[in-house]
Amino acid sequence: MTHPVAVLGASGYTGAELVRLIATHPGLRIAALSADRKAGQAMAEVFPFLGHLDLPALVRIEDIRFGDIGLCFCALPHGTTQEVVAALPRDLRIVDLSADFRLSDPADYERWYGKPHAAPELQAEAVYGLTEFYRAEIAAARLVAGTGCNAAAGQYALRPLLAAGVIDPDTIVIDLKAGVSGAGRALKENLLHAELSEGTQAYGYGGTHRHLGEFDQEFSKVAGRPVRVRFTPHLLPMNRGILATVHVDGDPAEIHRTLAGAYAGEPFLRVLPFGRLPSTRDVRGSNFCHLGVAGDRLPGRAVVVSVIDNLTKGSSGQAIQNANLMLGQPETAGLMLAPMFP
Amino acid sequence: MTHPVAVLGASGYTGAELVRLIATHPGLRIAALSADRKAGQAMAEVFPFLGHLDLPALVRIEDIRFGDIGLCFCALPHGTTQEVVAALPRDLRIVDLSADFRLSDPADYERWYGKPHAAPELQAEAVYGLTEFYRAEIAAARLVAGTGCNAAAGQYALRPLLAAGVIDPDTIVIDLKAGVSGAGRALKENLLHAELSEGTQAYGYGGTHRHLGEFDQEFSKVAGRPVRVRFTPHLLPMNRGILATVHVDGDPAEIHRTLAGAYAGEPFLRVLPFGRLPSTRDVRGSNFCHLGVAGDRLPGRAVVVSVIDNLTKGSSGQAIQNANLMLGQPETAGLMLAPMFP
Amino acid sequence: MTHPVAVLGASGYTGAELVRLIATHPGLRIAALSADRKAGQAMAEVFPFLGHLDLPALVRIEDIRFGDIGLCFCALPHGTTQEVVAALPRDLRIVDLSADFRLSDPADYERWYGKPHAAPELQAEAVYGLTEFYRAEIAAARLVAGTGCNAAAGQYALRPLLAAGVIDPDTIVIDLKAGVSGAGRALKENLLHAELSEGTQAYGYGGTHRHLGEFDQEFSKVAGRPVRVRFTPHLLPMNRGILATVHVDGDPAEIHRTLAGAYAGEPFLRVLPFGRLPSTRDVRGSNFCHLGVAGDRLPGRAVVVSVIDNLTKGSSGQAIQNANLMLGQPETAGLMLAPMFP
Amino acid sequence: MTHPVAVLGASGYTGAELVRLIATHPGLRIAALSADRKAGQAMAEVFPFLGHLDLPALVRIEDIRFGDIGLCFCALPHGTTQEVVAALPRDLRIVDLSADFRLSDPADYERWYGKPHAAPELQAEAVYGLTEFYRAEIAAARLVAGTGCNAAAGQYALRPLLAAGVIDPDTIVIDLKAGVSGAGRALKENLLHAELSEGTQAYGYGGTHRHLGEFDQEFSKVAGRPVRVRFTPHLLPMNRGILATVHVDGDPAEIHRTLAGAYAGEPFLRVLPFGRLPSTRDVRGSNFCHLGVAGDRLPGRAVVVSVIDNLTKGSSGQAIQNANLMLGQPETAGLMLAPMFP
Repeated sequence: MTHPVAVLGASGYTGAELVRLIATHPGLRIAALSADRKAGQAMAEVFPFLGHLDLPALVRIEDIRFGDIGLCFCALPHGTTQEVVAALPRDLRIVDLSADFRLSDPADYERWYGKPHAAPELQAEAVYGLTEFYRAEIAAARLVAGTGCNAAAGQYALRPLLAAGVIDPDTIVIDLKAGVSGAGRALKENLLHAELSEGTQAYGYGGTHRHLGEFDQEFSKVAGRPVRVRFTPHLLPMNRGILATVHVDGDPAEIHRTLAGAYAGEPFLRVLPFGRLPSTRDVRGSNFCHLGVAGDRLPGRAVVVSVIDNLTKGSSGQAIQNANLMLGQPETAGLMLAPMFP
Repeated sequence: MTHPVAVLGASGYTGAELVRLIATHPGLRIAALSADRKAGQAMAEVFPFLGHLDLPALVRIEDIRFGDIGLCFCALPHGTTQEVVAALPRDLRIVDLSADFRLSDPADYERWYGKPHAAPELQAEAVYGLTEFYRAEIAAARLVAGTGCNAAAGQYALRPLLAAGVIDPDTIVIDLKAGVSGAGRALKENLLHAELSEGTQAYGYGGTHRHLGEFDQEFSKVAGRPVRVRFTPHLLPMNRGILATVHVDGDPAEIHRTLAGAYAGEPFLRVLPFGRLPSTRDVRGSNFCHLGVAGDRLPGRAVVVSVIDNLTKGSSGQAIQNANLMLGQPETAGLMLAPMFP
Repeated sequence: MTHPVAVLGASGYTGAELVRLIATHPGLRIAALSADRKAGQAMAEVFPFLGHLDLPALVRIEDIRFGDIGLCFCALPHGTTQEVVAALPRDLRIVDLSADFRLSDPADYERWYGKPHAAPELQAEAVYGLTEFYRAEIAAARLVAGTGCNAAAGQYALRPLLAAGVIDPDTIVIDLKAGVSGAGRALKENLLHAELSEGTQAYGYGGTHRHLGEFDQEFSKVAGRPVRVRFTPHLLPMNRGILATVHVDGDPAEIHRTLAGAYAGEPFLRVLPFGRLPSTRDVRGSNFCHLGVAGDRLPGRAVVVSVIDNLTKGSSGQAIQNANLMLGQPETAGLMLAPMFP
Repeated sequence: MTHPVAVLGASGYTGAELVRLIATHPGLRIAALSADRKAGQAMAEVFPFLGHLDLPALVRIEDIRFGDIGLCFCALPHGTTQEVVAALPRDLRIVDLSADFRLSDPADYERWYGKPHAAPELQAEAVYGLTEFYRAEIAAARLVAGTGCNAAAGQYALRPLLAAGVIDPDTIVIDLKAGVSGAGRALKENLLHAELSEGTQAYGYGGTHRHLGEFDQEFSKVAGRPVRVRFTPHLLPMNRGILATVHVDGDPAEIHRTLAGAYAGEPFLRVLPFGRLPSTRDVRGSNFCHLGVAGDRLPGRAVVVSVIDNLTKGSSGQAIQNANLMLGQPETAGLMLAPMFP
């Protein structure tokens, strides 16, 4: 059976990535695409790479007939999303890719996003969308909140380790490297080719990056006690990919064993042999996450590295994985595309 | 029905691209992979991006049982290919990706490749693999010779125009821009990141590039008279993509009309509206070819631009498209993957 | 003697490049920097790479005391420049980097820039700044108009050939490849890293690019008859560099001899041995122009390639070269910095 | 006065960078260039970007008349260097860029480089070349050992902090990001454009990177007790630049104050205002090092970031800075070239 879906915010990178993936998904069909400022345009004008597809024209959200829609992907900017979602039909299944429903505690939301939440009842309802750890809740959910892409990369490296108690929760350092598409199609000086290529720098440092809210919420839940990691992301001259280098205190072999065991049956998570660390190039354009563990010359120290494609496993691929669960489809449907290399 | 196929030369970029595409192809299944110098290794060691697939280990060609194989992709280097193919079972269907069988005239082969052909009877048998123009021959062929990637890009821009006689065949200039993966995984100084990135230069200029042999053969056939184009390729700091800028004398509107008419029913060839020229970013990783035509301030002058991904439509995607025809499958089977952008 | 100079429009790439070059110039000293929207800021805030220099703060143009200034570089946007220059002191030497004074004929200006010139008397006074061909005029000039960067690359390849009559003036095709810094620090979608990297496309095609006005003016002057070239520029995923591939009809050896002879004594122009074509990587960050000539298998056809750094020889380096002449300094002063490779 | 110098190993990137910098150095003149395998070639053939310079041809080391040489830069591979240097005249001043003389303890050398040192008496004589911390020793030295590029970046961030005791020496994590030119002009698969661009990964991890030998030696000396840092370098898709992100325990404000104080008079070291972290793009091609300090939401935690150009401040620029001291020239002579941006 093919489910008709809508993509709200189809003119951004995550919206386009949703369409790219749905294009060869056997169980989903795009029934509506919205982009307020580009309403009336064809998707092929906004994204010529999708020109081979027979897609509905971009419309404004209010012009979508949601009665025909089985599930709605919401790829709108943070902040406005909560208002839009609040106005959608109450029986519509929604996978949100914004940051608006990731934090379940209203106080946390206000702290990290600087203003009270406009739809706290939806915030309470939303299920956190890190698929591998919330399968049952997601399958039963009406509203799923996609995770931050950096937050996903960090959690894949750390959740089983915190759950098993094999690392010191108080000395975790996440040093993350991110491609530029994670910043979206925004016109900002630091995203220009001439500014970014051939250079790198940290951003969102100093304990200010909003994905820390997700780390705090989830890691504390997993560990059963407050966990506060140190997190410094860096912007790299590449388009896709996140590499999270996580410096931890713990026994390297035990860490590797724990990770490998936790992910043994996972279709998208691959733990490399001990001592091998992964590269972002090997997951580009795919829903896979590769992980590796290496020891150090210093006993009791280890490095855990996880890599994902921020637009796929970190965002739109994850969203489809969640949609598959919500619609009773195979979890991997449409998502087994091989990475693209070189 | 799923056909078991072999990929000879699986440790190069075109071999890996074949595996990438076959991974989600509904009618093909990889039964054997060869790589002489890496025999015994797992494909995931040579190409970690394919690590999620359950693939046979790399073996030497002589260790493949061809009785179990329905079709063989041959992605070996130029020169050795003709000897390998000559030694394969006579009833084995073969799609070759090398240059060895592209030229049908032994004298042409010797002229462009500098030595006599070692298997002239196979050379005579081989069908030129530019799918859209040789469908019937390919469907009936045992041995199909994949085109040069640059040669494909140039022919998509020019064949209908030469056939229709709407351009001057004696003043054609093909100025081509190519990504680096077309040069393969060879260890050459000019392919190093530090040498190539942030720079561009011409290569194979001066009427020496071997794809000129294909241009001469095919364009003369189409035009019904000798055609000798000028062709200067350039190496660009990007991994995938070919953009052929073809400068021609002819009426721009008529040229656009001719191209659009010729490709109206083609699943992989898209002619943009008149006056719009395509970008390589919009076909990356896909089997599509986008084409555009623009006029000039000078009457009777036009620019035709075609873009393809050299590894896909220019090589491995084309090979699968041909294999589909040879095996009686839908021509587009496994090839409708959307391009990857950004 | 050290001359105090002002840079108007110091917050753009050409302004920054002027400061970079003047920083180690023995005869120039930066006395004033303007940037209207960023007035009050330190240059190191706008361009941290210049943070080691002791520079005056950015001010508005009206706050500069031009009595203290020996020469003024004007790196302002096209269009507004003519009004600014008209308001500057009449005895101030000016090297303009915009397009406003490149065309000497008011009708030409209006045709290519879509509106009448606001300061036609200055337009008549301005000297075209392609140094090697206008030395005497530049040395005596008050107002010098820097050339377009693409226009410079094309002219270095073609002027001696048109002057000597060794090529057919009616069949010239300039296929140009340009790095992104030529587009300036503007916030445009197609200049984003995620849009531009790993891809290429034509721009300003169809006989519409404004540098055609310069080509027409200069080539016709040199040839002594109207010359109208075909010109298609392409945007490449690199920051600096222009490579102009010029396809011409003429004898390759004679073309090479003519170019090599014309540039024999030039400090910044290097003609490679016959049959070798240059790379942009070899002039990056420098004021050098490398040129090469290759023949074709077709007799009477040749390719001439010139490469420059668009920001240096194509703009700010050229401006300083002209300033050197105007101030009676050695022409090469401050400009012999070696290119940066890799 | 101009000193004649030799560059041994001129066909690699650090050799070429030496020539680039010496080209505009007022006190140095290149008298000899060696490159064994390319002896007899012109430097312009090996590095066309240096084609504007009047340079001696490449020769073999044994063909250099060292009596005419005032100082010798040795940019040869690790391992062979110690034998070459041992055979040079005993009164020749030498700045070595290899790893052979960085570690003063023979046991340390054997541990990190896997074999006994072939010239232990020279090892004892050599002065460690981190200029700002060994000025007097370098000025008096005959043989100076250039530091590792990664080692330099890490030490600029940490030495003053360890000396002042404002950070915990036992919890230091150095997460480093490096451009590809640091790996040299070697033909390795992972250095190919198609492999490296658009991707990132760790290398030399697990406490195995040889620059750890330098960190151990120097940090222990500075701290007056053994210091063993954790160090994970990453290869980035860019040509030049190192960014060292150093995660430390200590008071951020005190750390910033300490660094800023230590480097207040340094011509090449710039500490940004508190809370600002630097970018590699802002030191590209220059001898500058930018440093920044940011706090964390967790009290007592800080991030220190240092950026350098690996080929300049990390290698060839440092070498010239040391040569300046050894020859009694101003330390900054020839090294005040502004970075190149964009």
